[in-house]
Amino acid sequence: MELLEGLLTRRSVRRYSDRPVSRETIEDVLRHAMYAPSAKNTRPWHFLPTQDRRILDGIMAAHPFSRMLTYAQWAVIVYGDSQAADTPEYLPVDCAAATQNLLLAAHGHGLGAVWLGIYPRQERMDALRRLVPIPDNITPFAVVSIGYPGRDYNEQPDRFEPEKIHWDNQW
Amino acid sequence: MELLEGLLTRRSVRRYSDRPVSRETIEDVLRHAMYAPSAKNTRPWHFLPTQDRRILDGIMAAHPFSRMLTYAQWAVIVYGDSQAADTPEYLPVDCAAATQNLLLAAHGHGLGAVWLGIYPRQERMDALRRLVPIPDNITPFAVVSIGYPGRDYNEQPDRFEPEKIHWDNQW
Repeated sequence: MELLEGLLTRRSVRRYSDRPVSRETIEDVLRHAMYAPSAKNTRPWHFLPTQDRRILDGIMAAHPFSRMLTYAQWAVIVYGDSQAADTPEYLPVDCAAATQNLLLAAHGHGLGAVWLGIYPRQERMDALRRLVPIPDNITPFAVVSIGYPGRDYNEQPDRFEPEKIHWDNQW
Repeated sequence: MELLEGLLTRRSVRRYSDRPVSRETIEDVLRHAMYAPSAKNTRPWHFLPTQDRRILDGIMAAHPFSRMLTYAQWAVIVYGDSQAADTPEYLPVDCAAATQNLLLAAHGHGLGAVWLGIYPRQERMDALRRLVPIPDNITPFAVVSIGYPGRDYNEQPDRFEPEKIHWDNQW
């Protein structure tokens, strides 16, 4: 798939087939996530890919819009390391860029994925922290649900909003 | 260029040729930026693409790592709208995803680009606000410097860090 086409055709995919997704494929998706830019190239991200039903069910209990995890082959928890980041406030920015790369890499592999927001909602961050114990400097940032698409996602919504481009320095 | 290859070969490009970049190309880059995901699909971003030397010089005066704007064909200021966002705290997350799409779309067009962090540094946000007056609910988030690459960027740094993947639920 062509890069520009891939940016336009990536969708939030919440229905999955039962086709397995190999660990090697997930590793390659995460490899591409790690090529996102970050402030001062600190790369303050971590990833926990899991197929553990206890964890997937725990995320569903903590997150109101996560029912698609019932059928997901994998969930990837994206974390940020506040000690590694340029400043703690850059952490969500860097993790978001990596998460977007992750979604696009999944799309490039023919997978479907959806980004479940965790940060900045404290109750979700706390729940994820209880589910998988992590060091104090690590913050749960997002969960990405992954599987091969369970239906066609060929229709393409029009998201181009020319009024959001401010030409000629005019607001 | 292939999507997966594009994710790996995108680089921070700070040296530009004097080849002009058309307004149509910039508009297409921004079209692709707008296909990023956002919390509840609120798409709380705005873009101000400019070639105005006064503004580019003003950014250089406000940002310590922005000398590449001397030779940039365009700067795109990315803004977030705190009223449009799902919550104000999601604003940087959504804007970061759009900015990453912007950088990738530039790469897909054969352009070079680099992300200059503005948010969360208050002095930079204030300086951008003075440079281009904007409504109170709008926050300057980032500047992207754009031009055709002025040298080869063929070498590819290895950013894969397998120790940042936590398999088997082990931290």
